[in-house]
Amino acid sequence: MELWFTEKQTSAIGLSCRVTRTLEERQTRFQHLAVLETEPWGRMLVLDGMIQLTTADEFVYHEMLAHVPLVAHGSARCILVVGGGDGGTVREALRHREIERVVLAEIDPEVVEVSRRFFPELAGGLDDPRVELAFGDGIEHVARHPGEYDVVLVDSTEPVGRAVGLFDQPFYEACRRALRPGGILVAQTESPFYNQDLVRRSHSAMSAAFGEPARTYLAPIPTYPSGLWSFTAASIGPDPSRPSARYLGREAPWEPSSLRYYSFGVHQAAFTLPPFVEQLLGSRASKTGAGAAR
Amino acid sequence: MELWFTEKQTSAIGLSCRVTRTLEERQTRFQHLAVLETEPWGRMLVLDGMIQLTTADEFVYHEMLAHVPLVAHGSARCILVVGGGDGGTVREALRHREIERVVLAEIDPEVVEVSRRFFPELAGGLDDPRVELAFGDGIEHVARHPGEYDVVLVDSTEPVGRAVGLFDQPFYEACRRALRPGGILVAQTESPFYNQDLVRRSHSAMSAAFGEPARTYLAPIPTYPSGLWSFTAASIGPDPSRPSARYLGREAPWEPSSLRYYSFGVHQAAFTLPPFVEQLLGSRASKTGAGAAR
Repeated sequence: MELWFTEKQTSAIGLSCRVTRTLEERQTRFQHLAVLETEPWGRMLVLDGMIQLTTADEFVYHEMLAHVPLVAHGSARCILVVGGGDGGTVREALRHREIERVVLAEIDPEVVEVSRRFFPELAGGLDDPRVELAFGDGIEHVARHPGEYDVVLVDSTEPVGRAVGLFDQPFYEACRRALRPGGILVAQTESPFYNQDLVRRSHSAMSAAFGEPARTYLAPIPTYPSGLWSFTAASIGPDPSRPSARYLGREAPWEPSSLRYYSFGVHQAAFTLPPFVEQLLGSRASKTGAGAAR
Repeated sequence: MELWFTEKQTSAIGLSCRVTRTLEERQTRFQHLAVLETEPWGRMLVLDGMIQLTTADEFVYHEMLAHVPLVAHGSARCILVVGGGDGGTVREALRHREIERVVLAEIDPEVVEVSRRFFPELAGGLDDPRVELAFGDGIEHVARHPGEYDVVLVDSTEPVGRAVGLFDQPFYEACRRALRPGGILVAQTESPFYNQDLVRRSHSAMSAAFGEPARTYLAPIPTYPSGLWSFTAASIGPDPSRPSARYLGREAPWEPSSLRYYSFGVHQAAFTLPPFVEQLLGSRASKTGAGAAR
């Protein structure tokens, strides 16, 4: 028997893979949750029918979400992850030696429970004494903790259901207030090929919330729609697109030797946007008034 | 009725899209050929069941295949396209004002015929007086034309059937001999996620043929397997990873204003490889002897 899983990435596009076994399937209070053993990509976490991660390519997403702001910041001590109950973002954050506290504001405790069971290589970091699980609504958490975090990482699901508010200006404003001086916010903001409106709106809402242009960056993630993913960063401190001098120096406070996607070069290159993305953000026209490739 | 087309990208991965209409389907002397009207991506050319291009994302592939070597070269006059019967690569090459001659060595005349009919925005350039159609085997063509081309672009299908030889060292050696002084070769070399062995072998074969390390670069193409594609460049002249001074200057001999993926920044960023790609090419270890992200 051939068993195939298909995610309908849009109403007219599907990505499918052969499945060896369904390891878990349940309805939580918040969403439908499944863990599949797939043939091409190892284990896969699926929420409401949408691929959240596979063990084959989660490294790209988690490294790029966590290390870009942490390396740009240079001396982050206290960070917040909104969503991210699988633990992958926390795992990457903990590579930074000076991190004293990582708060995970995940709405669904069952994601954490299931990840501990089926994705120990992601969830392992959740048992670190520096990590604090704050189950509940991320929007409320951010609003209740002004001036507390050096870096806020929005590791959310697609903008459906409870996650819709995580792409709006009021949330980004609350994130700005939740930052300490020098702080940086990064959010995952979907595909620049298939979700252009959302990429544009997130960028514009984050820019308005921070009072200066947000910065979009890109990374390839094969199991996400279109294979190209965007992240949007805003800062009340250093430029998110540049590794800090401390990290570029000899005494960098982390151990990056096992990273597979992130490097200082990749960090900077990821912010070099192709003209079609600059145009959809409106940044190309406003910067030069000239054609797309000048 | 819902009609779906699925490409089995590997034995365990499928990419599907809704199809409005089959515009053309036939068996040519060389391959099965179909043109589909798809809902998400516009028209699609399919050869032997594999997506060759869609009107939605062909710009990334064709711009990155053609402009990287042409801009790096700086004054190319005579170029060869091996494969590429759809005309997209020729279209991009013709943006460069100093091009005097573009030879298209396509094995299958029916690809050209079908593209003229269904993809006029790609095939239009084929009627340009500077373009010469040389139907036949690309490997033989290259061997018969030593010292003739400034740039050779290998715009091939996947390495199955007749295209296998296009990924081997003897072909790359013939390409080197076909180049004029200062010439550059670029070939499409598949996905660094799904075809790692081929990416590595092409790089190593091209490096051996040119007597110095070839350079791999990347671009995101949603309808190709994994969504991330590699190209490999080798040169007997300028560094393929850098736009030439002439193109960076005020009198650049082209009109890039309508480009949607390529820019000088994107050109350079595309050569910044993530550690997992550098490792598979063996370049990281040999350069630094250190860990992946240093």
